[in-house]
Amino acid sequence: MSNSALLTDLYQLTMLQGYYEQNMEELAVFEFFVRKLPENRGYLVAAGLAQVLTYLEQLQFSSDEIAWLASTGQFKPAVLDRLATLKFTGDVHAMPEGTVFFPNEPLLRITAPLPEAQLIESRIINLLHFQTLIASKAARSVLIAPDKLLVDFGMRRAHGSEAALLAARASYLAGFTGSATVAAGMDFGIPIFGTMAHSFIQTYSRESQAFVHFAEANPDNAVLLIDTYDTEAGAQKVVDLKAALHAQGIKIKGVRLDSGDLADHARKVRIILDRGGLNKTTIFASGNIDEYKLEGLMAQQAPIDGFGIGTHMDTSADAPYLDCAYKLQEYAGIARRKRSEGKATWPGRKQVYRNYNDKGIMSGDTVTVDNAPCAGEPLLQMVMRGGKPIAGQPTLIEARERAKRQLNGLPVSLRQLSNAPEYPVIISAELQALAKIVDERITG
Amino acid sequence: MSNSALLTDLYQLTMLQGYYEQNMEELAVFEFFVRKLPENRGYLVAAGLAQVLTYLEQLQFSSDEIAWLASTGQFKPAVLDRLATLKFTGDVHAMPEGTVFFPNEPLLRITAPLPEAQLIESRIINLLHFQTLIASKAARSVLIAPDKLLVDFGMRRAHGSEAALLAARASYLAGFTGSATVAAGMDFGIPIFGTMAHSFIQTYSRESQAFVHFAEANPDNAVLLIDTYDTEAGAQKVVDLKAALHAQGIKIKGVRLDSGDLADHARKVRIILDRGGLNKTTIFASGNIDEYKLEGLMAQQAPIDGFGIGTHMDTSADAPYLDCAYKLQEYAGIARRKRSEGKATWPGRKQVYRNYNDKGIMSGDTVTVDNAPCAGEPLLQMVMRGGKPIAGQPTLIEARERAKRQLNGLPVSLRQLSNAPEYPVIISAELQALAKIVDERITG
Repeated sequence: MSNSALLTDLYQLTMLQGYYEQNMEELAVFEFFVRKLPENRGYLVAAGLAQVLTYLEQLQFSSDEIAWLASTGQFKPAVLDRLATLKFTGDVHAMPEGTVFFPNEPLLRITAPLPEAQLIESRIINLLHFQTLIASKAARSVLIAPDKLLVDFGMRRAHGSEAALLAARASYLAGFTGSATVAAGMDFGIPIFGTMAHSFIQTYSRESQAFVHFAEANPDNAVLLIDTYDTEAGAQKVVDLKAALHAQGIKIKGVRLDSGDLADHARKVRIILDRGGLNKTTIFASGNIDEYKLEGLMAQQAPIDGFGIGTHMDTSADAPYLDCAYKLQEYAGIARRKRSEGKATWPGRKQVYRNYNDKGIMSGDTVTVDNAPCAGEPLLQMVMRGGKPIAGQPTLIEARERAKRQLNGLPVSLRQLSNAPEYPVIISAELQALAKIVDERITG
Repeated sequence: MSNSALLTDLYQLTMLQGYYEQNMEELAVFEFFVRKLPENRGYLVAAGLAQVLTYLEQLQFSSDEIAWLASTGQFKPAVLDRLATLKFTGDVHAMPEGTVFFPNEPLLRITAPLPEAQLIESRIINLLHFQTLIASKAARSVLIAPDKLLVDFGMRRAHGSEAALLAARASYLAGFTGSATVAAGMDFGIPIFGTMAHSFIQTYSRESQAFVHFAEANPDNAVLLIDTYDTEAGAQKVVDLKAALHAQGIKIKGVRLDSGDLADHARKVRIILDRGGLNKTTIFASGNIDEYKLEGLMAQQAPIDGFGIGTHMDTSADAPYLDCAYKLQEYAGIARRKRSEGKATWPGRKQVYRNYNDKGIMSGDTVTVDNAPCAGEPLLQMVMRGGKPIAGQPTLIEARERAKRQLNGLPVSLRQLSNAPEYPVIISAELQALAKIVDERITG
């Protein structure tokens, strides 16, 4: 994962040039939030904070980067000197990873000298946006099939290697069982899963021979791909190999289907396996699966034990981006607000309070000015002080447990894959009053 | 850019375990191709080969990675020993970056000992898929607005940092003028562009003061964002500052619009600027622009000189992935073919030949077996031999020039943003005969 300080938009640096020249280095408060939900989303799941904190802690321009900036001729020597020693010294408040949230609710607040808070905008959005996008997409499959083995299969069509790694992380956080991406195992401790590809079968002249050799090479992980030529014939070959493999002490752990009508094939294959005495051999399915297809397969009670979910999840194909922003809310102690057409924001430092009904189900949130009295559970917590992460940040496993609890608290109506009703998010009277004051100051 | 050998799917490693154990290390031929075009695409633009060649040349497991694999308990010591010394020693044939191509045409062919050719599948797809996706998306804007300044603004919502960098590269390759992503300037020599954000304006109590300070800090790049409060009022403030800034030797290079009806605002702003003697001050527009909106703005002859195109391009929002594959075509000298339902592929090593009409416009391609006689320009070239790139690989600028020539050769009907007709791609009689032979061998 690259944490180069040059992972930013050029306008951040041209603005810093202005800020430094005018000594505009008082405290600024920026917040990251989502403006509105994509179609077919009823809620979002916060993810990416761990990578944000690492980025902020390590933020520093290398001497090569400063030399390169100098070579562009766009920066004055005094500004380059400031950049050369820049560190992030601010505070961060955030919703813990795994928190369910809604539009207009800040999930991260940065309080730092203006140039620092400005420079980090591009990469902070880049990190929070993507993992939140994927965790929110993955959660949909988790809620549809809570008792199934769900594996991220998306590396190849994820948008680059960082996307592949962070999609593995975000989907695991949201409740997936693991990922096929090996590096995600090493980097994040995520359980990794894998079987065989069609090419393995095709290198052999006989499919059965390929099955035997794979099982011998992977005796504890003998999951055999049976659809290269004919799915049911493949299942029968697996049954026919049972005795020979058992004699070697190899159990046929599972078969994988990757094409055709998965529910229909699964039913036929289940019968063939059961008749052949392989009733403990599981059926794993992959191939173009997303939460919509998963819902169909679950509704049909297809006898499938696990699913590989790839491209559609790792690209969040039905909603490949979120309408999100990182906006200035306060500078030098004065609340600020953007009022551009269709893009106005609520001003000031904010907190989000969540209320639950007596069954522990979320009943409504309130967004209000920080430190205003409000009922409910405050969602933003301090996670970094003076540029150092506060000790005891949740592990990935803890974030995953939080996501599970949060998703369990979702109203049933919000779990629908489409046409979910709007969850109540109230903008408090205090916040509305502050917006009015800010507007009067701007127009006055 | 990470080139870890663990950027792969676990099944590649479980298959390698089988291949090593059975001494299946003869030459394998794999090809990467796109099965079918997404809706609203009439052609694709090849990109990502440079990163593939770097990946292959550097491919190596580190001792930490081998130790981690050992710790999973899934790999036998003999296999880990082989992985520890694995290098890519094969040949690569490919279409040069910037080549326009169509479904069923291989754009890359790997010829290498089976374990090597297998291991690299996941990352090769990951690299070729993403840049091809973005170059193909970006080319649509380039063809709609060939004489405009087009700048990649997408870093923040690109899927991670590698996606941001590679989207900057792929869009520049396809004809964009540059990118806002600073690291793309340092890493790839791409021209970088940037102005100011709303937050810069908001930190000041007066918009005019913000304009003056920004222009003083960036005298050669005074592009002022005028929509924070009221676009036309902002334009008038710019006019009012003209004399004072000119007295300091500062030319107001441009203004930026980022919200509202861009064509309407641009027309009004153009009049205000021209009346104020700023007829050389350009208008730059951004905010949710993609090729569809661009087409509308061009049709309205909106007086806009340049466009920032971000999220929609960097995520290829209307088609966030391609249906592509990397498939075994030959092993140990024998052609192979996958026949799974709906996923059958053409077997053997292939070449693509392109023909042109007398005006230099592409008139049809033929996919045939390698070395079969065929009319036209062969598109696949050898680019790596024995694991080493062949000298004289095109620079990014050369790839960009090739893309420009290729896009100039596109039939006009294929340039439509939707409902483009199908370009003729013929599967040669030789290739059809080979498929028949392979099928007879499988079923026989």
